[in-house]
Parts: sequence; C-alpha cells; structure tokens
Amino acid sequence: MKKPEIVLLGSGHVATHLGHALMENGNKICQVFSRNILHAQALSNQIMCHKYTDKIQDLYDDADVYILALSDDALLDVSKKISLKKSNQIIVHTSGSIPMTVLENSAANYGVFYPLQTFTKNRKVDFDQIPICIESSNEWVLQTLLDMASELSSKVYQIQSEQRLALHISAIFANNFSNYMYQIAEKILHAHDIPFEILKPLIRETAEKVMEGSPAEMQTGPAKRGDVLTIEKHTAFLSSSPTYKEIYQLISTNIHNQYSK
Amino acid sequence: MKKPEIVLLGSGHVATHLGHALMENGNKICQVFSRNILHAQALSNQIMCHKYTDKIQDLYDDADVYILALSDDALLDVSKKISLKKSNQIIVHTSGSIPMTVLENSAANYGVFYPLQTFTKNRKVDFDQIPICIESSNEWVLQTLLDMASELSSKVYQIQSEQRLALHISAIFANNFSNYMYQIAEKILHAHDIPFEILKPLIRETAEKVMEGSPAEMQTGPAKRGDVLTIEKHTAFLSSSPTYKEIYQLISTNIHNQYSK
Repeated sequence: MKKPEIVLLGSGHVATHLGHALMENGNKICQVFSRNILHAQALSNQIMCHKYTDKIQDLYDDADVYILALSDDALLDVSKKISLKKSNQIIVHTSGSIPMTVLENSAANYGVFYPLQTFTKNRKVDFDQIPICIESSNEWVLQTLLDMASELSSKVYQIQSEQRLALHISAIFANNFSNYMYQIAEKILHAHDIPFEILKPLIRETAEKVMEGSPAEMQTGPAKRGDVLTIEKHTAFLSSSPTYKEIYQLISTNIHNQYSK
Repeated sequence: MKKPEIVLLGSGHVATHLGHALMENGNKICQVFSRNILHAQALSNQIMCHKYTDKIQDLYDDADVYILALSDDALLDVSKKISLKKSNQIIVHTSGSIPMTVLENSAANYGVFYPLQTFTKNRKVDFDQIPICIESSNEWVLQTLLDMASELSSKVYQIQSEQRLALHISAIFANNFSNYMYQIAEKILHAHDIPFEILKPLIRETAEKVMEGSPAEMQTGPAKRGDVLTIEKHTAFLSSSPTYKEIYQLISTNIHNQYSK
C-alpha cells in the first residue's frame, strides 16, 4: 500500500517530533505550514520537505492527510479556514483537549491522531514507545489512521473524544504535576546546599515501580502511615514557604483520607 | 580491615533491605531485634543470622555497630532504653526526620545511616545505586560509617541533621506526592475505561527527563503556557471530583505564577 502523502501544519514540539518520525518512516511530507514563516522553513528543511508556507490559501491541495499539530488556540482558528475538496482526503488534529468534531466542516473525512508524550526540543524520543490515540469520522478513516499510526508506534489505541479529555487530564497529573513535585524538591534541596543529583535514583525508582504495579499499592510515606508527628514537623519546616506548605498539607490530607478509610 | 559486626534493630522495609545488603556484602549480623518476635525470627533467618530477640535487655552486648532501622515512634522509644558500654561501639539510626542527637545518651559514638530510597516488599533494589546519607558524632565514627556505606553503595553523602530533614521533605514531594499524582491519573483513566498502561511511557519519560536537566526547564503543559481555556475545560471536567479539582487548581496556579513572573 502506498504511504499517505502529508501536509503538516505546525512547527512546535509535536509537529517537529511527528514530522521527523513520519520522514524516518518514509512518508512524503508535501508541505509544512506555520504562521511563522521562518519556523515553517526551518522544520520543512529539517524533514527533507523544503516546501513551506504561512498562508492557508497556499496550502498544497492534493495531499492525502493534513495533520494539524497546532496549539489549541491555533487549531480552532486554522480549522475554520480549511476546506478540503476531495472525497479521499483526511484532516486530523493532534490535540488532547479538542473534540474531533471541530474538524467536521473542514473535510468529508476527519479524525484525531494524538501522540501521548511529553516532547522537549533537542531531546530525542523513541516514537515506537509513544502511545498514539486514534479517533475517526468513519471506518475508512479509522483504517487509514490505524495503518499510519502502527507504522510509527507499537502502542496504538482507539480513544473517543470524551475519553481523550480524561486521558489528557490524567497525563497532566502524571507528567506536569509530577514534574512540578520534582521542581519543589529541587528548590528545597538547593536552599539547603544539597545537590538535586541525590534524588535521582528515588525519582527513577518511583516511576519504575508503577511499571509493575498499581500506584495505589506503591504509595508509601508519613501521610499513608498517618504519622502525625512527622507531618507536623514537616509543615513547621515549610512555614517559610506558604505555597509548598499548602501543597504538602492538601496532598498529605488526601493520601491519609484514602488509606484510613 | 575487619568488617564491623552488626546488631540490626527493626524488621520493616528499611531493616529488611539493609539487612540483605549487609549480608551480601559479607558483614556479620549478630542479632535481629523486633518488638514482634515472629518478624525478628523471620528476618534473622532470611539474612543467615538466626539469632533474634524482642527484648532490649537481651541485646547482644559485643557488636561493633547497632543499626536502629525503626519507625520514628519506635526509634524514640527504643533509643531511650539502650546504653552501650564499650568505648568502640557505635549506634546509628536510619531515619530521615529524627536528629542525630536523639542517640547521644545511648552510646559514646553515634550517627545516622540514612538510605534514601523507597522500599517495597518483594521488590529487589540495586543497593549500589541508593544514596546513603551519613552523619556522625566524631571523626572516627564518620570514617567507620563512610567505609561501611561505600561498601554498599557508590553514592555516599555527608548530610547534617537539618539538611537531612530538608532532604526527607524533598523526597516526599519527589516520591510520595508524584506517586499520588500517578494514583489520581489511574483513577480518572479507570473511570473512563482506559487502561493505566497507556500512561506508562509518559511517566517513565517524565522521570528520565530530569536525569539530564533541571525539572524547572522540563516543565510543560497548559498551566505553564497560561492556556486558560484548557484549564477551565479541565476544571469543569473535574467538578464531580472536588478533591482532584482542588489539587488541579492549586498546582496549576502555582505553576502559572512561577512562569508568568
């Protein structure tokens, strides 16, 4: 089967990593769009495409799949301005939070192609290990997207719009908020002349433990044990950082309530 | 140099993992104490010691190092009842939160031997990668503990009592609270028929990213970007879980404030 030819809209982390993965998989990228022409040019050169634009009206009109890897704001704006004419063209977006139906007026065939990972510039990720969440307006779109996704990743899921929102929120807890917990830890350490290095084995082990068991079984610490004296000592210690103290108390209370039921 | 002979007090996760590591290193464990005689017996058999007691007055009096790997409550109680007679004996505890001086009346030589890791029953850890934090009442104790620790681990730190409290609190954020974020994620997923499996690559990558850079540089997500629409959509979604909503809002606000300064 011929690999779909793609127009890639966006030049941020998702567009960049997805563009590289598609290129390495042998997909032809026909064009890169970005509202910033320099970003469009840079990405199109990186992924051996060399065609780019910053104008919706100049989009190449003969591709198979149009991927909108844009911020949610830009996605809502750009999707309104696109109208694909051919009956075998597909438009998809990569957002965790936006329903698929935002694309229903942009083409006869539409869907979602949501890679669930935290992307950072200059950090290579193994795309094969990134879950790709697919949603589609019809069976033919579903099959096309499943084929595309399974060439990039061994972890492909069908996820409907409401589930995807739940998944995105879960990812914020598991990723954004965990990383913020690491940040607080680093700030407390540095205030006491201790290198962040010392916590790395603990952080790695905390993540590795839940590869094998439910996080509910892996919980440890004074809040779970109901060790009131230790919790009081810690909140007293944090009294000079009201924000950290508030977070410490709120999470400790919730952990304690869960395990004392 | 002759390896110190050890009496191990405790039978919980820290005592168990430390006992195994000491045995595997060739240290002689003379005796295991636990207030629960069955636990004392079980651990002493596991680590090829076969001598155990549940009575402080029956502690073997000729060991080199007495390790109190006890809960904080038990540590405060047991330390009051121990009084080592010989001038070359050392007593240490393994607690993150208790000052070293709690042992000053238990022996002429005292210190802290705090392994910074999350221990779980039936999960093998690589002790060589566990930071061991040392504190000591004098130079001779320091050298003895550094020698002991460096035979078990390649990561040995000297950490004073106030620093150790800061370190313990940091570890609670980085470990206990991150794990609780994973728990919330798992609960939201299960409520929407999505397997926790899907988040595992993201959790692993979140931890791996901070092996190479500061968590402050690795932060991503709607709160950092100030994406108010997405945050409102998420808090509306969480309105049926007031606890999760409260945590979501508090952490998002703090992330946002940090990056909008």
